[in-house]
Amino acid sequence: MNKNRIEAFSDGVLAIIITIMVLEMKAPQGTTLEALRSQLPIFLSYVLSFAYLGIYWNNHHHMLHTSHFVTGGILWANLHLLFWLSLFPIGTEWMGRNHFAPIPTAAYGVILLMAAVAYWVLQATIIHSQGAASLLKKAIGNDWKGKGSPLLYLLGVAVSFRSVAMAQALYVLVALIWLIPDRRIERLLQHKE
Amino acid sequence: MNKNRIEAFSDGVLAIIITIMVLEMKAPQGTTLEALRSQLPIFLSYVLSFAYLGIYWNNHHHMLHTSHFVTGGILWANLHLLFWLSLFPIGTEWMGRNHFAPIPTAAYGVILLMAAVAYWVLQATIIHSQGAASLLKKAIGNDWKGKGSPLLYLLGVAVSFRSVAMAQALYVLVALIWLIPDRRIERLLQHKE
Amino acid sequence: MNKNRIEAFSDGVLAIIITIMVLEMKAPQGTTLEALRSQLPIFLSYVLSFAYLGIYWNNHHHMLHTSHFVTGGILWANLHLLFWLSLFPIGTEWMGRNHFAPIPTAAYGVILLMAAVAYWVLQATIIHSQGAASLLKKAIGNDWKGKGSPLLYLLGVAVSFRSVAMAQALYVLVALIWLIPDRRIERLLQHKE
Amino acid sequence: MNKNRIEAFSDGVLAIIITIMVLEMKAPQGTTLEALRSQLPIFLSYVLSFAYLGIYWNNHHHMLHTSHFVTGGILWANLHLLFWLSLFPIGTEWMGRNHFAPIPTAAYGVILLMAAVAYWVLQATIIHSQGAASLLKKAIGNDWKGKGSPLLYLLGVAVSFRSVAMAQALYVLVALIWLIPDRRIERLLQHKE
Repeated sequence: MNKNRIEAFSDGVLAIIITIMVLEMKAPQGTTLEALRSQLPIFLSYVLSFAYLGIYWNNHHHMLHTSHFVTGGILWANLHLLFWLSLFPIGTEWMGRNHFAPIPTAAYGVILLMAAVAYWVLQATIIHSQGAASLLKKAIGNDWKGKGSPLLYLLGVAVSFRSVAMAQALYVLVALIWLIPDRRIERLLQHKE
Repeated sequence: MNKNRIEAFSDGVLAIIITIMVLEMKAPQGTTLEALRSQLPIFLSYVLSFAYLGIYWNNHHHMLHTSHFVTGGILWANLHLLFWLSLFPIGTEWMGRNHFAPIPTAAYGVILLMAAVAYWVLQATIIHSQGAASLLKKAIGNDWKGKGSPLLYLLGVAVSFRSVAMAQALYVLVALIWLIPDRRIERLLQHKE
Repeated sequence: MNKNRIEAFSDGVLAIIITIMVLEMKAPQGTTLEALRSQLPIFLSYVLSFAYLGIYWNNHHHMLHTSHFVTGGILWANLHLLFWLSLFPIGTEWMGRNHFAPIPTAAYGVILLMAAVAYWVLQATIIHSQGAASLLKKAIGNDWKGKGSPLLYLLGVAVSFRSVAMAQALYVLVALIWLIPDRRIERLLQHKE
Repeated sequence: MNKNRIEAFSDGVLAIIITIMVLEMKAPQGTTLEALRSQLPIFLSYVLSFAYLGIYWNNHHHMLHTSHFVTGGILWANLHLLFWLSLFPIGTEWMGRNHFAPIPTAAYGVILLMAAVAYWVLQATIIHSQGAASLLKKAIGNDWKGKGSPLLYLLGVAVSFRSVAMAQALYVLVALIWLIPDRRIERLLQHKE
């Protein structure tokens, strides 16, 4: 079974999620600069989620690249990841429209956490399916980014109830860590070719 | 005529349907945990529909894989299936937003039923088009899952008016039966390669 | 320049249009059978538009199949067609939600007409670009379906103000004429292979 | 790393953006010709944005065609472009629904400007990645269209506060300049083949 269709389907879902988030933003009420400024929190949470989805798409792209074939387990682990990613637009809207109130901020962190766990599960499923010589296993090495992110999300969820600003800072921090593209895989693939 | 475009189009439609369902969920009103909890029935019906659409995508993927070419009949049988699948978001929302009231629950079952019938029609059209040596025909065998599911949906629709919980249990049961990926086709394809 | 990307983009737009129409339907208000029944005109106009978009996708698929390369003119003629097709969801909703009132019914006919004209323009652009030996030119023959449909749409628009039922009958009639897949092209392609 | 997936993803996002704009239009209230006429500003801004997105898709298509491989930098420059393009539906709606009021018109110009800058960044990233013999560098030549457009957008934003009509005229002017497809690249590719 080739991997073209799983890539195409994932690209489709990610493209829609990323675009649907804009629909949630809605145009400002009124035509004043004030109306525009009141949209700022929604816009900022949109930027953050857009960056996150870009990171997921980018790394998903790299990860499947290392996989030579696709099993039923990979298909379902992939759908599971897409499920949590599909909750980004709603989480983003709830957080933005309520000016980063504690519970929506924590809920956003839970969605980030579940997506990270689902990503890790997909990664483990691919590594397991490809056998001992898995290219992906070599590429990720000790995977400190993959292991550390869920902890930072958990921390973000916990501090949401004390300081929303600190929770946001944590979410932004993880995004920045990941924005550095996964050169480990890129490098390994170049060596191989 | 090759089958790439029918796969790409179906992937597109399925990806959109699966993602549009989230739009229907809408963000909770207010920022309390109570507001979040009131979204639970909508969330649960979303999970069920997401699983169903994942199952359809997965098996659709396998089914077209066994087909060597595409006829006009297959194109239309495929569009017919997509039509019923496209009603999932509305059926899901109606059922979830009304806390699994009898008529929406029955309507959801009717959509499940029609999609199953449309899937069966597509399967029969493919088998017929590929002639006596159809790989798909061998793969599905006696097809007890394909034949049994519509009966269970019908039962679900009927009991909706007596016990909504039992109807839901039936819908979940069929999803679980199908979540086991169609290894029959997978096995046969491996033998062949 | 190859034609894969124009096919992929068109498939994407058509897949989204066809699925977005459901969003317009919205779930019924209330949980009674009456609420469901009041959605019937919207559902029927959805079925009609779904069939039309299926026909366009199907024939678009065949038409591009006969084209060996893509020019800038073809790209823009294709975008022009997609523009008019993108108005289907709104036309469908306006007509359905107002129970087939005269002006929305006429407006729907105008959208059908413009899409047919755009299809004809795309067809002429492809034929012109491929030179004298155009496979498509041979395939469409005297093209009575392509020439007759705009006339029937025009008639439909005109009679909308006298009898909405007759206008609808005309729109359904054209759909039925086209539902017969364009076997002319299919046959010719088979001969060639 | 091949460029198929970046093309597919971009096509997906552009297809969705272009189609989602219609959702923003919404069906007219009432069934009179007056109701239809009141939608005219929204329709006109939709036409303008549709043309712009068509231009971007078209030139994006050409630009990636000249690129032999894809780097991490190109992926992110592409996502950055898609981000600004994803704001078109909201900018369009805000401008159209408020009958081209000054601030929404200026905001629309800012979105056009940022998209043009992002396009320029993507172009520079591709040229840089392909080395001295970059096909794209040769193709764009002195790139007066790419350099002039941002200036015209800036002018449009500035005059929005004095004359909205002049701002609109400038936006339409730039679209017309770009509607002439980038034959420079087309010609060069033909020479090469």
